[in-house]
Amino acid sequence: MIDRSDVEAAWARIKPHVRRTPVIELPGGSLGLSHPVAVKLEQLQVSGTFKGRGAFHKLVSSPVPAAGVIAASGGNHGAAVAYAARALGHRAEIFVPTISSPAKVARLRSYGATVTQVGAVYAEARDASEKRAAETGALIVHAYEDPGVFAGAGTVALEFAEQSRLDTLLVAVGGGGLIAGCATAIGAATRIVAVETEGTPSLFEARRAGKPVPVAISGIAADALGASQIGAPNFEIAQKLVADALLVTDDAVRAAQRALWDELRVVAEPSGATSLAALMAGAYRPAPGERVGVLICGANTDLGAIPT
Amino acid sequence: MIDRSDVEAAWARIKPHVRRTPVIELPGGSLGLSHPVAVKLEQLQVSGTFKGRGAFHKLVSSPVPAAGVIAASGGNHGAAVAYAARALGHRAEIFVPTISSPAKVARLRSYGATVTQVGAVYAEARDASEKRAAETGALIVHAYEDPGVFAGAGTVALEFAEQSRLDTLLVAVGGGGLIAGCATAIGAATRIVAVETEGTPSLFEARRAGKPVPVAISGIAADALGASQIGAPNFEIAQKLVADALLVTDDAVRAAQRALWDELRVVAEPSGATSLAALMAGAYRPAPGERVGVLICGANTDLGAIPT
Repeated sequence: MIDRSDVEAAWARIKPHVRRTPVIELPGGSLGLSHPVAVKLEQLQVSGTFKGRGAFHKLVSSPVPAAGVIAASGGNHGAAVAYAARALGHRAEIFVPTISSPAKVARLRSYGATVTQVGAVYAEARDASEKRAAETGALIVHAYEDPGVFAGAGTVALEFAEQSRLDTLLVAVGGGGLIAGCATAIGAATRIVAVETEGTPSLFEARRAGKPVPVAISGIAADALGASQIGAPNFEIAQKLVADALLVTDDAVRAAQRALWDELRVVAEPSGATSLAALMAGAYRPAPGERVGVLICGANTDLGAIPT
Repeated sequence: MIDRSDVEAAWARIKPHVRRTPVIELPGGSLGLSHPVAVKLEQLQVSGTFKGRGAFHKLVSSPVPAAGVIAASGGNHGAAVAYAARALGHRAEIFVPTISSPAKVARLRSYGATVTQVGAVYAEARDASEKRAAETGALIVHAYEDPGVFAGAGTVALEFAEQSRLDTLLVAVGGGGLIAGCATAIGAATRIVAVETEGTPSLFEARRAGKPVPVAISGIAADALGASQIGAPNFEIAQKLVADALLVTDDAVRAAQRALWDELRVVAEPSGATSLAALMAGAYRPAPGERVGVLICGANTDLGAIPT
């Protein structure tokens, strides 16, 4: 298993390619919260989500064949792989489930990728991508189950901890790549709390079962957090280093999206507002003086889809 | 006339009330530019524009009568005054021209202000507000012609210069409050370049005439940059400290808005994208190695109005 030094090494490798995203420190009274909160604006990352970090790390730390790279993705990982591949001069083929938003598919194509829409859920797109990779010899870049990818994702936590004093970091969970990376990076010194929507409870249900289990996927964050089962290494890390796993409703996510726009002029997609939703809805209540951070981890959405 | 020390004093006064907004350093190749650019995300400021700085400064540095404060505004200054008044416990009456966007009017009301829509252009709303203030005794907070207001606005330039090494700062101009403040703050050491749309050329025309002159107002940025004449003290400062005044088309502004969303997931209103438009359209061409900054100075718009 990887450790913090691997995330530090990943950070050194990807720094020329990714953005150092800013943190806004909000005082109590902001976003309807009674306590201060540090908000990391990772939606400003290249490709529009934190996934840019993992994609670049995989591509700069692996040999890429002439057939290029291939990925399956609800959209954000695919966009990141397509973006990184173009930047580094590789071909990219991306497989997305049919629920992916038109904005995400259009963006993939704008990055020069070949896009195939197949299957109702992520798992079906993944099967199709693996079959295709076996035919072409392309490098598979897995969305979250690859330590090279989640070491890259974890660099966001190193950066956040450098920018802000954090006791606790709230992290949205889909397949578990972001939280595995963040926990590996800073989990020894910082309380890591997972947040999922009720319709995408892969870590919540795995913790109840004691192992990764399939979950039914639905709701507002399905296209970004809708892994039907948490990754095996991701769960192993989470069991050691994640303090709690919370659920929020789709309405709580919408309220967080609305507050981010109304008070901060920040646009976030549902997954990007999920960790904040746990604070606003009271699913996570910090102790007095506890320094809490949230990651606004993505904004790959149609502007018209933001609740106002 | 005020000087840099006044802007520094203003900064100390308003720091408890406003946000330190982040800067993103973009490498060459971003936003269609061949050179790097530092982008200050001032649209994250309280009230959604840089106007929050000037409004807070005026209200914390002036005695406010029981009748409260009164302002006339295309919308952004009014929102800032309403926001600051509510935060500081004062009543606020805001006069806006009828062209102000529904989103801006709704926001004023959400901040607890009494809103009066009157007149086709800013000057008419201003006349009505002055008449009302004479009746009630409320403190008039002028949108740009007040040194207390533009000293507050200038704090954004002190902050930017602390965050980024700047040779040149591009600033959008309406009535001239922002550029007067920025030039006073850092104009001695930094080249200040004004950018206006062709439909809001108050500084451009004043420079041609050698004095403030009335201009016809039209186009995409009219509701925020549409002062019909640049402020007298603002022009005096600009004549000493502003290197050049450039015009951009509405289409160039739309292209800048689109690029900010596509590449950075930043939403800007037209005035907020105007300084970037001058770079993207080639109206300003930096010399090799010149370090250029742009201010994304506002995002008070309907999300549906962003060109995509």
